[in-house]
Amino acid sequence: MASLTQTVNRAATYAEPGTLKICIQELPIPRPAAGEILVRLAFSGVCHTDYAFCMNKFRGIPATPKGQIGGHEGVGEVVAVGDGVRTVAVGSHVGIKYTAAACLNCENCLVGGESSCTSTATFKLSGYMTPGTFQQYCITSAQYATPIPASLDLAAAAPLMCGGVSVYAGLKRSGLQLGDWVVVSGAGGGLGHLAIQYARALGARVLAIDAGAKEAFCRELGADTFVDYRALDSDERLAEHIHRLTEGGAKVALICAASSKAYGQAPSWLRFRGCVVALGIPDASVSQAISIFQVVSLELRLIATAGVKTGSRLEVKECLDIAARGLVKTKLQLRKLDELETVFHEMHAGQVAGRVVLDLQ
Amino acid sequence: MASLTQTVNRAATYAEPGTLKICIQELPIPRPAAGEILVRLAFSGVCHTDYAFCMNKFRGIPATPKGQIGGHEGVGEVVAVGDGVRTVAVGSHVGIKYTAAACLNCENCLVGGESSCTSTATFKLSGYMTPGTFQQYCITSAQYATPIPASLDLAAAAPLMCGGVSVYAGLKRSGLQLGDWVVVSGAGGGLGHLAIQYARALGARVLAIDAGAKEAFCRELGADTFVDYRALDSDERLAEHIHRLTEGGAKVALICAASSKAYGQAPSWLRFRGCVVALGIPDASVSQAISIFQVVSLELRLIATAGVKTGSRLEVKECLDIAARGLVKTKLQLRKLDELETVFHEMHAGQVAGRVVLDLQ
Amino acid sequence: MASLTQTVNRAATYAEPGTLKICIQELPIPRPAAGEILVRLAFSGVCHTDYAFCMNKFRGIPATPKGQIGGHEGVGEVVAVGDGVRTVAVGSHVGIKYTAAACLNCENCLVGGESSCTSTATFKLSGYMTPGTFQQYCITSAQYATPIPASLDLAAAAPLMCGGVSVYAGLKRSGLQLGDWVVVSGAGGGLGHLAIQYARALGARVLAIDAGAKEAFCRELGADTFVDYRALDSDERLAEHIHRLTEGGAKVALICAASSKAYGQAPSWLRFRGCVVALGIPDASVSQAISIFQVVSLELRLIATAGVKTGSRLEVKECLDIAARGLVKTKLQLRKLDELETVFHEMHAGQVAGRVVLDLQ
Amino acid sequence: MASLTQTVNRAATYAEPGTLKICIQELPIPRPAAGEILVRLAFSGVCHTDYAFCMNKFRGIPATPKGQIGGHEGVGEVVAVGDGVRTVAVGSHVGIKYTAAACLNCENCLVGGESSCTSTATFKLSGYMTPGTFQQYCITSAQYATPIPASLDLAAAAPLMCGGVSVYAGLKRSGLQLGDWVVVSGAGGGLGHLAIQYARALGARVLAIDAGAKEAFCRELGADTFVDYRALDSDERLAEHIHRLTEGGAKVALICAASSKAYGQAPSWLRFRGCVVALGIPDASVSQAISIFQVVSLELRLIATAGVKTGSRLEVKECLDIAARGLVKTKLQLRKLDELETVFHEMHAGQVAGRVVLDLQ
Repeated sequence: MASLTQTVNRAATYAEPGTLKICIQELPIPRPAAGEILVRLAFSGVCHTDYAFCMNKFRGIPATPKGQIGGHEGVGEVVAVGDGVRTVAVGSHVGIKYTAAACLNCENCLVGGESSCTSTATFKLSGYMTPGTFQQYCITSAQYATPIPASLDLAAAAPLMCGGVSVYAGLKRSGLQLGDWVVVSGAGGGLGHLAIQYARALGARVLAIDAGAKEAFCRELGADTFVDYRALDSDERLAEHIHRLTEGGAKVALICAASSKAYGQAPSWLRFRGCVVALGIPDASVSQAISIFQVVSLELRLIATAGVKTGSRLEVKECLDIAARGLVKTKLQLRKLDELETVFHEMHAGQVAGRVVLDLQ
Repeated sequence: MASLTQTVNRAATYAEPGTLKICIQELPIPRPAAGEILVRLAFSGVCHTDYAFCMNKFRGIPATPKGQIGGHEGVGEVVAVGDGVRTVAVGSHVGIKYTAAACLNCENCLVGGESSCTSTATFKLSGYMTPGTFQQYCITSAQYATPIPASLDLAAAAPLMCGGVSVYAGLKRSGLQLGDWVVVSGAGGGLGHLAIQYARALGARVLAIDAGAKEAFCRELGADTFVDYRALDSDERLAEHIHRLTEGGAKVALICAASSKAYGQAPSWLRFRGCVVALGIPDASVSQAISIFQVVSLELRLIATAGVKTGSRLEVKECLDIAARGLVKTKLQLRKLDELETVFHEMHAGQVAGRVVLDLQ
Repeated sequence: MASLTQTVNRAATYAEPGTLKICIQELPIPRPAAGEILVRLAFSGVCHTDYAFCMNKFRGIPATPKGQIGGHEGVGEVVAVGDGVRTVAVGSHVGIKYTAAACLNCENCLVGGESSCTSTATFKLSGYMTPGTFQQYCITSAQYATPIPASLDLAAAAPLMCGGVSVYAGLKRSGLQLGDWVVVSGAGGGLGHLAIQYARALGARVLAIDAGAKEAFCRELGADTFVDYRALDSDERLAEHIHRLTEGGAKVALICAASSKAYGQAPSWLRFRGCVVALGIPDASVSQAISIFQVVSLELRLIATAGVKTGSRLEVKECLDIAARGLVKTKLQLRKLDELETVFHEMHAGQVAGRVVLDLQ
Repeated sequence: MASLTQTVNRAATYAEPGTLKICIQELPIPRPAAGEILVRLAFSGVCHTDYAFCMNKFRGIPATPKGQIGGHEGVGEVVAVGDGVRTVAVGSHVGIKYTAAACLNCENCLVGGESSCTSTATFKLSGYMTPGTFQQYCITSAQYATPIPASLDLAAAAPLMCGGVSVYAGLKRSGLQLGDWVVVSGAGGGLGHLAIQYARALGARVLAIDAGAKEAFCRELGADTFVDYRALDSDERLAEHIHRLTEGGAKVALICAASSKAYGQAPSWLRFRGCVVALGIPDASVSQAISIFQVVSLELRLIATAGVKTGSRLEVKECLDIAARGLVKTKLQLRKLDELETVFHEMHAGQVAGRVVLDLQ
């Protein structure tokens, strides 16, 4: 670690979880233990889940610890490695995901369910129970860090660590085939704008649903057609319209918004053997005869992936490779670490367009 | 058709759909048109769906025509073939399924979804919109009739034409692997008792759920363990008990009963990436935030198959081959055609144990 | 059949199989039996297999009957239907494939292996044991005819009935994923030029191999890179070059030429778990030397679809749908029926560029 | 490591690779580095590959280092762990496989191809380039060690670490379904006797091929039928006999012997879409004559897993779980470490019946 010219680690901490109060602090630079690496972060995406952790929005799980450092879409350069680290070299670019560490050997990890790792000794969630990526220097597991392809812009890569891989994994698991119609619900948002592009890259035709103001944006990203959900006065008319545009219904409905309503509607948009893919997670307390939250927590086959589940290392690699080939462009706005509290307030007010990425350099 | 010694076709017709009134009639023996065959039926299973059609229980679909001949689990011998029939020989044994005819070329048929065939010119449902198997002589599509393996007892084969293939298709589509735990809900019933055996044949371990009186029956059929759902005083305790017995939850829950309750409970029985397979269909009017009925109608990936969906020709063949090897034994009670009304009354009262098969000879 | 204005059916027959002698004849227009349709053909592709049947090139199978009408890539309009035909309407456009009829119910058909149908009563091969598509009016099975999408040009559709579906089925069965490298061997030919386009449509990157003169043609069709196999002086140098261009080896090698040599070389072009897809068929009397050691070391797969195997009805439908969306363009030269003998001579001399399609109108 | 009562590590080393000379030595007990564990081995299987490494039988790969400790089927108890090891506890039982360490993050590892890991910094092969399991104390990777289920006998588990997982992985990858016929070639040997049992556990029917003296042994293990390959005087008669016994050909042929001959014969044993699975590895310098025409005609597949490829961590876990449930019994003969040279001589002479397991305690 002799090469580190900086001696201070600026970090944004959750001063009072349950409120949006953020404290910018100068902390010591941590040192990697055996099996760990130290990453000098260049960028971190700001996910809606970060806002939720800061506000303690998720019920039924432990509250976010006071003073925690949030963030789980970080990319940067490895500046030091701990004992026994042989596969990650100092100087290489890596990413840190929501799942910060997984054992890779439990029943869930072995089938690619690393974000549901059952090893309490190993499993870590970045920016919730483990310090995350809203800081300049972050410790993470060498085994679980994600190599970033050389041709991929680091700022653009950040939102792929969670948002990108979640939509990609959901689409891939849906089993969609060349030419299938995919409805992206919430298509103009942080997840949705990536979903349009990944669906297109995978050969699908895309019907984007959002408010009318997002139409041009969605079409520019590759949506074949667009539906303004507010322009149709009933669920039935919306469904009919989608069936007409897709010549019989879509094969996949990717629900990017955390809306109970969309889950109720989506089956009516689909054709035979269609698939609803749950990404946005309705609140656990919203009762449905079949609880989407429960299904999502267990990654049941009823639906496919979710905002808090992201994807496996293999899915992350594939997701990045696609973007590295230029097939997916992240639309982002760069902000400074000091602006995080402001960004959260904008999220709270629903004023954020595209994905916010913090410049940590 | 010179060889027919009989000149009369005894049939049971729905005298007043909406009531259980059955009329036993003597009808002429029909003649097969081009592409059709005439089957002298030996046996027909009586499915709970037959009872439902007789009673017009399904809402939102056309009422059963007055005077219709019900039944969709028929087996017998081919006694005549129409023009252009080259693949079915007079004298061979065939079965008639709920789907009596499908085009085999529409978008749904091409992926094995023959029971959702979209060809209005071809698609026929036995015992609902087309005369079914509660008669001695039945016309059916040569292309869609099911060859019965020589070593399979005809009476035992009858309930496999709908009940058997439905549970087999559901289990196969669940993707279960050797050693996985399968919960069969309603294990002692007509579908359930077949599900236990097919699940075991497929290498699964089976946890049977039913009322306590069915325990010995279920264990004798191969259930590894049994849970009396009435012995546990809450959904939570039932779920805990199942998790303990299956060392972490089952991989598959096969819901054989038409119970909304089971669908609400089943997710809590499962382990990571578990799968709820819908067989029993709750009434369409029972609203759930995600409509199981809708999902089932479209065979969405949220769940897997259903009592009215049965399986493809390939799945039927596999289902019969397994039984022909002696791995599955149908538990049935033989009754006479004239007893159909009595049987329906017993079904109405919940008094039927195992599967009723009508002896039509 | 009242609407038929023509009373004569011009046909090209194999006058002396074993030679290229073709006889142009005026035959009566046949009438469809039960289950059959009569098609007024607009176009027929000329496949290399037609040339082989005319010349009795395949050993170990019965000789082509004298006077047979060849051809198995026909498209046209239905002008009459036989008894019992309910799903094909007069006036619709259909295609006739190499497999002219299959039972759809034998063990092979049920898993999509219709071109290996085992029903001797039903199975028919067009242009070999059954009169084929080198005529103006052709009888075929209603059940097995292929609907042609409205937006697809009929002449362009013809070569898809065999060549197109064969390359599509091979690529699909290889399990290729978005971004995988596919080597197309014989890329500038009739199969190869379609393979480049289908591979691209499926998201692959394509390395085309052929003689140098074909480079511009292959790149124009979408090949990402091109290798002139004659420019490298050894198998080892060819393999090294391919590994360099594909950053470690291709995932799939599609062997379009009937060359034993390519089968011996292909494993060395692949990366871990790569797949050799056999399309071109070396003579039955030749065995190919394949190194099991190499196959095992890389966990390679060798799979087959083939010029004489084509694909299932589902694969044909998908293949046509892709072309109907404009993703694949057939490069063809239109010729007259009377020119067939000349065309065969050109094939014999290796002088045919692209696919020949006979205009039968 | 305070609890170690022993201070000496007895080991068998290859005194002069290329000969069968073994030296029994007393070595110091090694200490685990970061990420490593020390295992007190109870048993080690002796694989035919060990004999091959001792004799430098494999061409084209580096010679075995003089003084190397062979062995790659070891099981024992963890007695010490290095820095950063959190998921493996002292006192637990683990196994050591042929692949002793893999990075888990390279392109090959991410798809389960850990035995083809490309990370030169991490990848280790036990008993060849890394000291193996023919010793009492062995260092291995914590991440890659295999947990042994509690109910599994340790001596019986040893041969599963390589032989067991190889046959299981090959059978699983073949895609066999319930009731499919599997031909096991070399059924009475070390791999074959496990293959019979795993195939049965997976629901297959088994046709065992070996010399006649092995018939009773194979049938006792569950083979449905047996063929003495020496009793049939030609390849054609052998193929016919197999087709008769399997009613049309087998679905899978698992080649357990390192015999070129079997690879040439196997395609003729199969039915439509059958699959040859390569386990036994013919010498690298030999190419096998495989008829592409035959492969194409039946749409066969040739896939590989292999004696030197074994399987992934997931496949090992599944393989052990099946044995732990009592579905597979290893037939073994216990020998002492000092007898290794004698055992190799017996292998050389073809005198070993079943699997030899060294008792290292």
